[in-house]
Amino acid sequence: MAAAQEYTVRKLEAGDFDKGFLQVLGHLTTVGDVSREVFEEQMRRRDASGAYHTVVIEDQGRVVATASMVVELKFIHGCSKVGHIEDVVVHPGMRGKRLGLMLVEALIEAARADGCYKVILDCAESNQAFYEKAGLQRKEVQMVRYLDR
Amino acid sequence: MAAAQEYTVRKLEAGDFDKGFLQVLGHLTTVGDVSREVFEEQMRRRDASGAYHTVVIEDQGRVVATASMVVELKFIHGCSKVGHIEDVVVHPGMRGKRLGLMLVEALIEAARADGCYKVILDCAESNQAFYEKAGLQRKEVQMVRYLDR
Repeated sequence: MAAAQEYTVRKLEAGDFDKGFLQVLGHLTTVGDVSREVFEEQMRRRDASGAYHTVVIEDQGRVVATASMVVELKFIHGCSKVGHIEDVVVHPGMRGKRLGLMLVEALIEAARADGCYKVILDCAESNQAFYEKAGLQRKEVQMVRYLDR
Repeated sequence: MAAAQEYTVRKLEAGDFDKGFLQVLGHLTTVGDVSREVFEEQMRRRDASGAYHTVVIEDQGRVVATASMVVELKFIHGCSKVGHIEDVVVHPGMRGKRLGLMLVEALIEAARADGCYKVILDCAESNQAFYEKAGLQRKEVQMVRYLDR
């Protein structure tokens, strides 16, 4: 009898380029043709800033879920910090296993460890109930302006 | 006869600590007791990251309006960037002069110059019409979790 499947949240690694990291993001939005060099350079820039947390869950050698957070340095609230959770996605074939929740909870813990006074994210109204499971509450409205159109 | 008042958008400077920068932010939310040293250290951290734009408008030697943007490095959209506009506030006595709009437009131009494919922000529903004047459109909902309560 097979043991119950256990999943582990870990940090993004350069080797995840070969494990389908960008393909998983492609289930969220357009990723485009990102070369290994461009991916690694962006990872280096993000790592160097110290402002990013990107977590993944792997299954059978493939990245099947990911989420990111950028930590913003504020002047308000005593020069505090805010964690912006971004780009949360689970491979369609792996949904319903609470992987997304594991990732969001890991980022919330990272935000707490970094000294953030809050975490925020923007999502479609249809995902509100999912984020409520992670203790988030609806507050404001998101406004957007696209610059590349 | 006095000339029509002209306002100029400029970058935040260390000397704005003495020109009421934090007091203006205090019209937005809690700032707390931030010393000059803490302010300057946060400014250095933000400047060193290269990810922040903070703009102000001055009137008679006082900062009367400010807005910030943090530029997030993405993997999506060909490792593109997104500008998060934050902490837009105009001194209550200086509202109705389009200063907020000047600041937001300056940040949108900075986002474009930095190669952002979009700018986003979260605001109260009551401020939606203001941001529509700057070409933004309502899209998603904001979710929040406070960590310091």
